[in-house]
Amino acid sequence: MSTPAIHYAQQNHPRFLDELKALLRIPSISTLPEHKADCRKAAQVVADELKRIGMENVRLIDTEGHPLVYADWLHATGKPTALCYGHYDVQPPDPLDEWVSPPFEPQERNGNLYARGAVDDKGQMYMEVKALESLLAANHKLPINVRVLLEGEEEVGGGGIAAFVASKPPEMKADFALVCDSEMFAPNLPTLCVGLRGMIYTELEVRGAKSDLHSGMYGGAAPNPFVALAQIIAKLKDENGHILIPGFYDGIIPPSADELAAWRSLPFNEDEYRTHEVGARELVGESGYSVLERTWARPTLDVHGMPGGFIGAGAKTVIPAKATAKVSMRLVPGMTPAKSFAQYKAYVEKIKPAGVDVDVRLIHQGDPCLVPTDNKYMRAATRALHDVWGKDTVYIRSGGSIPIVGDFARHAGLPSVMMGFGLPDDNLHAPNEKFNLKNFELGIESLIRFFGEAGG
Amino acid sequence: MSTPAIHYAQQNHPRFLDELKALLRIPSISTLPEHKADCRKAAQVVADELKRIGMENVRLIDTEGHPLVYADWLHATGKPTALCYGHYDVQPPDPLDEWVSPPFEPQERNGNLYARGAVDDKGQMYMEVKALESLLAANHKLPINVRVLLEGEEEVGGGGIAAFVASKPPEMKADFALVCDSEMFAPNLPTLCVGLRGMIYTELEVRGAKSDLHSGMYGGAAPNPFVALAQIIAKLKDENGHILIPGFYDGIIPPSADELAAWRSLPFNEDEYRTHEVGARELVGESGYSVLERTWARPTLDVHGMPGGFIGAGAKTVIPAKATAKVSMRLVPGMTPAKSFAQYKAYVEKIKPAGVDVDVRLIHQGDPCLVPTDNKYMRAATRALHDVWGKDTVYIRSGGSIPIVGDFARHAGLPSVMMGFGLPDDNLHAPNEKFNLKNFELGIESLIRFFGEAGG
Repeated sequence: MSTPAIHYAQQNHPRFLDELKALLRIPSISTLPEHKADCRKAAQVVADELKRIGMENVRLIDTEGHPLVYADWLHATGKPTALCYGHYDVQPPDPLDEWVSPPFEPQERNGNLYARGAVDDKGQMYMEVKALESLLAANHKLPINVRVLLEGEEEVGGGGIAAFVASKPPEMKADFALVCDSEMFAPNLPTLCVGLRGMIYTELEVRGAKSDLHSGMYGGAAPNPFVALAQIIAKLKDENGHILIPGFYDGIIPPSADELAAWRSLPFNEDEYRTHEVGARELVGESGYSVLERTWARPTLDVHGMPGGFIGAGAKTVIPAKATAKVSMRLVPGMTPAKSFAQYKAYVEKIKPAGVDVDVRLIHQGDPCLVPTDNKYMRAATRALHDVWGKDTVYIRSGGSIPIVGDFARHAGLPSVMMGFGLPDDNLHAPNEKFNLKNFELGIESLIRFFGEAGG
Repeated sequence: MSTPAIHYAQQNHPRFLDELKALLRIPSISTLPEHKADCRKAAQVVADELKRIGMENVRLIDTEGHPLVYADWLHATGKPTALCYGHYDVQPPDPLDEWVSPPFEPQERNGNLYARGAVDDKGQMYMEVKALESLLAANHKLPINVRVLLEGEEEVGGGGIAAFVASKPPEMKADFALVCDSEMFAPNLPTLCVGLRGMIYTELEVRGAKSDLHSGMYGGAAPNPFVALAQIIAKLKDENGHILIPGFYDGIIPPSADELAAWRSLPFNEDEYRTHEVGARELVGESGYSVLERTWARPTLDVHGMPGGFIGAGAKTVIPAKATAKVSMRLVPGMTPAKSFAQYKAYVEKIKPAGVDVDVRLIHQGDPCLVPTDNKYMRAATRALHDVWGKDTVYIRSGGSIPIVGDFARHAGLPSVMMGFGLPDDNLHAPNEKFNLKNFELGIESLIRFFGEAGG
């Protein structure tokens, strides 16, 4: 059953896609200082569009980092108010040589749109804007009150929006949050995300000699920061994936038996996941836990890069004065960034090898969170999803972190509805990120119906 | 007592220095493909100068890498023939921001000349050229027969000269080699180097997933190549500096009791070395061995850089598909590169963690060597050094590697005289490399006298 708004969305789909491509061409990489202007530009483009479609009080809100985008439409008297969240910033695109088409030149191939940010999160954020446009254009009003709050620092810890939300401004007055930054468990399987891991992203900087030294002259006497980092990292996690930081697992709240049972009934084939999604000869991680438990409900530790020394082609025989490891840990309910970071820092300082100094730096952090499933907004979401996809919704968690979801609950009392349309093979944070074109279209329809159900 | 040649050298010192500066301005970084033309240019500049001063048969000899420079003067009938060796290539200059003056803009400060290659080896190689010029200009002849053979790949393993020497060409017909690429043990202390460590320079490339993955989504299931590398490296060497590769120490020939006694009498203060030369809070390495034993006569293992993943500022939550570690080992007499590499490769393949593949690649190699001390060329060298410096010569080893010295002995039967004038704080392979200006001057005089003594 089509509605005028859905009809409008279907008629205007090619234009929606062209607009999204224009937004994807802006390299709004929040972690790289040289792209600061691009971040602001992306924010302005979205703000201009929100104004054009009829949203009110549209403005950029400056933060210490990249600006927030705010807009509202509050004329649905007696109806609830949604806070629609998304982010316009993206991850760095490297390694560039692995992209089939350039990361900031969107290209359609095989029913997908390829570009950095296609799914995470410009494409999903833009679905919200286009659902609002469709409703406003078709009905000249929205079925509920809507506030839009978008950020440009999700990929770098979300400091700006966190400070804004913590200040409890009037712009946060709402009944629930709609977060479009997650994925469907499988193609055509409507999915709501009900749990997120938290994280601490850190740098370990190890310093040995006062300057770079010749490894022939000094090898055997001068401390080697890379060797020291290797020794430290090898003591952070054992070969079975068990993190060795004392107390790290204390207080973890495991999933309920019901939740675990539900996960077991999801369409998941470990061998296919290993072969097609990960593409590794073997999966790793703690024994005694399924893949979904390991990635959704257990803490993990990863190393992302180790800057320093000589990384060119060929050989340079240097003992570098310093080297750094970028190390992050994912946290699960029952853990807090502050406690985990303190345990980690104390342990690293205890195990650091002789001859070197270590700086343990916290780059950013986010709380783990679980969202309530027994409220009318979640029920509205499952009805809307059933209408569009013809199937019952599954509840999953995500191993990723959307720190603001915890802040919405803590500071503004908002339950979040995490409705996402990414797919497991969308290459988030990796080369050849994509968004399925059908999901972009049906995602907009799902959101149109959700706004209707939430106001019904 | 001055000779006409020494008088000439003293009179022409400012010009010699200007010429050296011009040579240092050419960024002949042999490991970086983009500097291939600079390497050839440096070779040509030196060849042109050899021709200008009266050397004969001057030419570049092409290799698979950068060209050799050859020249000779063979008119000292009945006198021995020296093969004068040096190299015109240099190490990469990074990290650039730690240089006080730019690496390829030579600058005099505090009695030193600062530039990449100042001491290693352009400055020392150029002393040979200027000693030959002084003798030819003052006497219109040389006291011995001289061949000059310079290379441009010393910093990348010296493949070209090794192949040339192994082919036993007529250009190698000589009685001994003069190698100017080492250092004095202390300022004003004439020094001959009689032993060098060998080396194997390798890369460990670890591959996990087929492409970069989001550490939130996949952390806990996907193998992390950096963690795997850390686990491997931590098993290569223990925290006491002992290398754990099975059989690695088998067959090592320790220094003689006499040599060890001589080392103990050298002016060496471990605390000063630690504080001023290394600048670390603590020295590392195998217990039970002195610093000189550890750096001259014991094998070591170092990591020089770990390319891969995300090395920019801030955060990227990626599990990279692959990561690499540049790992080298220094070898001592009794070890061979082939055997050590085979042991290392087999061990790495045995200890590699689950879920990853490892490529163990040999980038370059060099044999360890000891040179004979009981020949007339070494005696000529000690007399020459005593004349200039007024002190008895000390015999040291170097922890570094000059692979060609072993090849000179093996393929051409040439004993090497390793007469060097670098100083321990010259920052070889590091930012702010320098050459002491007095050593440049007295080094030329030492070589002039050495040529005289060797022909006497």
